[in-house]
Amino acid sequence: MSTTILEPNPAAFTGNDAKFVADFATLCTFGATANGGVHRLAGTAADSEQRAWLTRLLERHGFRVEFDRIGNQFGLLELVPGAPYVLVGSHLDSQPTAGRYDGAYGVLAAAHAAIRVADHCENGTSKPKYNLAVVNWFNEEGARFKPSMMGSSVYTGKLALEDALATADSAGTTVEEALKSVGSLGTGDGPEAAYCAEIHIEQGRSMEREGITIGVVDSNWAANKYQLVVHGEQAHTGSTIIADRKDALLGASLLVVAAREIADRFPGVLHTSVGQLDVYPNSPVVVPSKVTLLLDLRSADEEVLAQADQLLHDRLAEIENLANVSVEKGSSHCWPVTPYQPEGVELAEKIAVDLGLAYGRVKTLAGHDSTNMKDIVPTVMLFVPSVEGISHNEHEYTRDEDIVAGLHMLTAVVQRLCAGELDGKQ
Amino acid sequence: MSTTILEPNPAAFTGNDAKFVADFATLCTFGATANGGVHRLAGTAADSEQRAWLTRLLERHGFRVEFDRIGNQFGLLELVPGAPYVLVGSHLDSQPTAGRYDGAYGVLAAAHAAIRVADHCENGTSKPKYNLAVVNWFNEEGARFKPSMMGSSVYTGKLALEDALATADSAGTTVEEALKSVGSLGTGDGPEAAYCAEIHIEQGRSMEREGITIGVVDSNWAANKYQLVVHGEQAHTGSTIIADRKDALLGASLLVVAAREIADRFPGVLHTSVGQLDVYPNSPVVVPSKVTLLLDLRSADEEVLAQADQLLHDRLAEIENLANVSVEKGSSHCWPVTPYQPEGVELAEKIAVDLGLAYGRVKTLAGHDSTNMKDIVPTVMLFVPSVEGISHNEHEYTRDEDIVAGLHMLTAVVQRLCAGELDGKQ
Repeated sequence: MSTTILEPNPAAFTGNDAKFVADFATLCTFGATANGGVHRLAGTAADSEQRAWLTRLLERHGFRVEFDRIGNQFGLLELVPGAPYVLVGSHLDSQPTAGRYDGAYGVLAAAHAAIRVADHCENGTSKPKYNLAVVNWFNEEGARFKPSMMGSSVYTGKLALEDALATADSAGTTVEEALKSVGSLGTGDGPEAAYCAEIHIEQGRSMEREGITIGVVDSNWAANKYQLVVHGEQAHTGSTIIADRKDALLGASLLVVAAREIADRFPGVLHTSVGQLDVYPNSPVVVPSKVTLLLDLRSADEEVLAQADQLLHDRLAEIENLANVSVEKGSSHCWPVTPYQPEGVELAEKIAVDLGLAYGRVKTLAGHDSTNMKDIVPTVMLFVPSVEGISHNEHEYTRDEDIVAGLHMLTAVVQRLCAGELDGKQ
Repeated sequence: MSTTILEPNPAAFTGNDAKFVADFATLCTFGATANGGVHRLAGTAADSEQRAWLTRLLERHGFRVEFDRIGNQFGLLELVPGAPYVLVGSHLDSQPTAGRYDGAYGVLAAAHAAIRVADHCENGTSKPKYNLAVVNWFNEEGARFKPSMMGSSVYTGKLALEDALATADSAGTTVEEALKSVGSLGTGDGPEAAYCAEIHIEQGRSMEREGITIGVVDSNWAANKYQLVVHGEQAHTGSTIIADRKDALLGASLLVVAAREIADRFPGVLHTSVGQLDVYPNSPVVVPSKVTLLLDLRSADEEVLAQADQLLHDRLAEIENLANVSVEKGSSHCWPVTPYQPEGVELAEKIAVDLGLAYGRVKTLAGHDSTNMKDIVPTVMLFVPSVEGISHNEHEYTRDEDIVAGLHMLTAVVQRLCAGELDGKQ
């Protein structure tokens, strides 16, 4: 890995841009790891300390901070009494031993953008038709509590509040208990949204390759995510003859290998992976009786995804025979290719032209909170480049000039959404 | 799985045999699971409650109970002041959700055999040249603390005491802490052994197939056990292109599959397995950066084992290329085929003839505490049949008539070892 993580350098900027870069440097200290990354799982001390810091930042600028019933953190500024809100934000939680930029950049850019728009409204250079809400969605990563994008899923009505609150981590702590323990469990349902915007690092290398600074996201990849449970039988690893074994780990391993083989059948247009795999009883001398794993298939082409899915299911049956196991399909989470609203894409492109920023349309391969939000309100999703595409890794890096350019872009988007520029265009 | 676990039925026996079967039924209640198995990891409450029960049994029959510095439990009866001991025993700890017979049968049979031999010595029907020690070895299974056969490895000088005591379980609790917390940490090094005997269930199906009641173990299979660490790099499972991935779980899965493929090259004469596998960071949307696994190869034929080992090492290099990972070899634990002393095997065969028990020579595929003991003193290892060969499984079962026949056999072996019948034969 050749990436060097450079420290954010406020001295290279002036005024509010310097303040933004300095605040980002501060943000990187919450849950910092020795290798330059962060480890800030949802609902932990590191997550809540950072939330408290964000509260102080927003309150200093006149925002009122509240939490909803699933722990989403909102900074609210009422400019037009009774009007709905432009929601702008991302998430502060991280994967284990993860990078500094994923989510955290988007929340800080949202706060600074909203503060700047509020200033413009106050000094009369912009006239608001909507109110402003900065949002830090709870548990976007899904590392500690599944599913991912939990806070925005509850906000958008895709996940029942009570199911989310009852979800337990591997130690048995529920979301409700974790939120209570860090003081993030609120009472309301959050502000009513009129529009939404989010900025995020790309987490891929297409923008870097094409030399663009701003990615305007026009759709997300489709994904089929499956929880699979492989059932075998406990046996002695030494004395049990091979023909008698029902080895759940062999079955699971064949599934991991099959997932990669299927990806290799569709080079460049299909991504597959198994990120999580748990073995029972996981003892050195016991043939495993149960393995639970999460297998994803993703593509921008729904036809490719359907073919890959069929290959996977064919393979499942073969693997059951090969390894003398049974494979149970547990929960699944599938979504199609869905577009971001074209009027939002066009607005973002106009703004990029106005600001003189190199831009292009991109698709998001990862899920984001905005993927949920776009299904209920017009939503603008922006990317800045990731150096070498590295993400979910301590070496994740985006250049200072790009995070600042993204902030300028997001500020203009929020200002124009807030001014009602998309009203009547849906 | 067709096995029905029948409850031990003392009513089918008389006198001391009925007491033995009743005691075995009691033993099955410590750490009992809902499915008829036991869950009694080393150094836990279930393990220590059972140890306390064994102490009471032995003390009632005049044995003095002491623990050594690695938590081996000894019941000592001095018949010949100052003489060394015939050690007879096995282990009471179990695998997770395991069977009732593995280890526990051998400890109880040892206690009852020693009590019977002591009675014979007292009433003059046998004249002892050695003292009697019943032993319950600490942590034979290695499920909670690695390596397995820990207590007998320390006793025989194969593992340093301080290394064993410092070994931590997955929650960070050390052996020393666990032993202290359950009151099993003693001060001495245990009694001096002259001979050793152990009885155990076969954990395979060869005896059942051949219709024999007593297996006289003449040697152990050779084994090569490796800890392998697959190193990749964290990345986003959605957005990272396949060509950029360094997926440690893909590498590990290829190793699991390779282990089975190698076993299939040597049908019936090579056993391979991966029982334990841990993934980091094990989050649904992160390509794993590190997987640690334990891979075993076992054979009665050292030439086969050497060929298989070479195939594995060739495959390691291929897998590093295929999955774009590196594989680090961690600790290894290898042992050759070693015989049990022939004079012990012959003695056991004579006794089986005397008792009219169907017997045959067998090899042990699993490791046992006696595998360690035979390297320091003449050791007799006996097996009774396992129904369908099922082991390390809640459905493990051995018929009452077989456990009683095994007790009669073990009693005669201990009596003749104690009388010095093998003296001068080495």
